Amino acid sequence: MEEEMNKPLILVTNDDGVNAKGIAALVEIVKPFGEIVVVAPLHGNSGMSHAITVKVPIRYKKIKEVDNVTVYGCSGTPVDSVKLAMSEILKRKPDLIVSGINHGSNASVSIIYSGTMAAVIEGCIYGIPSVGFSLLDYSNDAEFSPIIDHGKKIVENVLKNGLSYGTCLNVNFPAIPKHEIKGFKVCRQAKGMWKEEFDKRLDPRNGEYFWLVGYFENTENGATDTDEWALSNNYVSIVPVEIDFTDYNKIDELKKWNYEI
Amino acid sequence: MEEEMNKPLILVTNDDGVNAKGIAALVEIVKPFGEIVVVAPLHGNSGMSHAITVKVPIRYKKIKEVDNVTVYGCSGTPVDSVKLAMSEILKRKPDLIVSGINHGSNASVSIIYSGTMAAVIEGCIYGIPSVGFSLLDYSNDAEFSPIIDHGKKIVENVLKNGLSYGTCLNVNFPAIPKHEIKGFKVCRQAKGMWKEEFDKRLDPRNGEYFWLVGYFENTENGATDTDEWALSNNYVSIVPVEIDFTDYNKIDELKKWNYEI
Repeated sequence: MEEEMNKPLILVTNDDGVNAKGIAALVEIVKPFGEIVVVAPLHGNSGMSHAITVKVPIRYKKIKEVDNVTVYGCSGTPVDSVKLAMSEILKRKPDLIVSGINHGSNASVSIIYSGTMAAVIEGCIYGIPSVGFSLLDYSNDAEFSPIIDHGKKIVENVLKNGLSYGTCLNVNFPAIPKHEIKGFKVCRQAKGMWKEEFDKRLDPRNGEYFWLVGYFENTENGATDTDEWALSNNYVSIVPVEIDFTDYNKIDELKKWNYEI
Repeated sequence: MEEEMNKPLILVTNDDGVNAKGIAALVEIVKPFGEIVVVAPLHGNSGMSHAITVKVPIRYKKIKEVDNVTVYGCSGTPVDSVKLAMSEILKRKPDLIVSGINHGSNASVSIIYSGTMAAVIEGCIYGIPSVGFSLLDYSNDAEFSPIIDHGKKIVENVLKNGLSYGTCLNVNFPAIPKHEIKGFKVCRQAKGMWKEEFDKRLDPRNGEYFWLVGYFENTENGATDTDEWALSNNYVSIVPVEIDFTDYNKIDELKKWNYEI
């Protein structure tokens, strides 16, 4: 019992839903390091970003308890799941929050739309070391086995070195065989954007409706210190992310504006 | 006609919905500066953050055209509204995107949950000068008249000086009479967090459900350079916000970790 109490408590969540293949892979990564509790959305929440549920109440239920891992499903978003875990489900403050493994990239500006990374940022606001993992393969049956050991190395580092308040990690894995992964790169978020196109259709009553479609455009000019560069060159990318969005470099410039009314 | 073409095109959006009192106040602020098109959610989207709608299609409709202001309602989120405006509704790229005036504060970490500021960040990703406005009054009938002139001063500055790529503005107004507003403060995002509590209830079938409730806690120790300080001292707060979330100060430290597998 005492030994159990000393093991790190690790909260696992995601945005693809509690039954996604990626969250099972993430449990496999963290299981050797501590006591594992999973609290994740019951259904897919891709693109939900940092949304919280305020118009309807939320619920959660225990889904299973297998091999010392307890799994809860939450009716809300990834951020709801973290808040509910922190306030209602976990018996003590977790030592680590991990989110993912996302089915698809969260590199560059995709972090802004990502439910996976929103859960991580929420953990960081709570002052808990938090890490998001994503694999560059959007398919439901993506192959996570090549990156298990790389994921463990990150978790080992975070538990050993900690993360200071206000900083969390955005880790992305290339979708390639393990022997082709060249290693890790600590890097910055690449400049880029999602170029949107809308697929316009007509419903049976002739009403127009639109499906959001789009593609990512990297707007860097050959810089080699970005997550997009690392990933396309077969490295695991690690971007330290901060929850203070202030653009400190602009403060002096803005102070020079004319504010006289 | 030519004169019309030379006027700045200003896109107005919000997260409280196209019929909110705050967006009417924002239209009043920007109207002297250009050609105004409103594209905003049909219904309230508070707390939706940077969510995009991917599971269902979205629609929009023209609601009215009054006094040269065209108003469209969108079935999706604030970010959907910006994307739809950019891709389908606006005839040309806007010169400015403004969002709000939010009914309630978006200072400190509230920016992370805010649909109002998500629309601004989205505009910034598109490379358009973008500004979010919020009043520290959550009520539907909040009084916006005291801050109209202060809002105009910000818009005048942004149109005159521009905003460089990757930077947008988070402007918050104290909810006080105009003569009590001391002026403007350019500041940083205060450290803080929403302390959550869940209101646990039982449905008629004895099932537990939870309403998210919470209160903001400022965790600064008396610092005077934050948005929270400015607002509680009767200043309008202006925080420059960046869309690059990289914590550059941590890159060297993370490079020293042991990555050997």
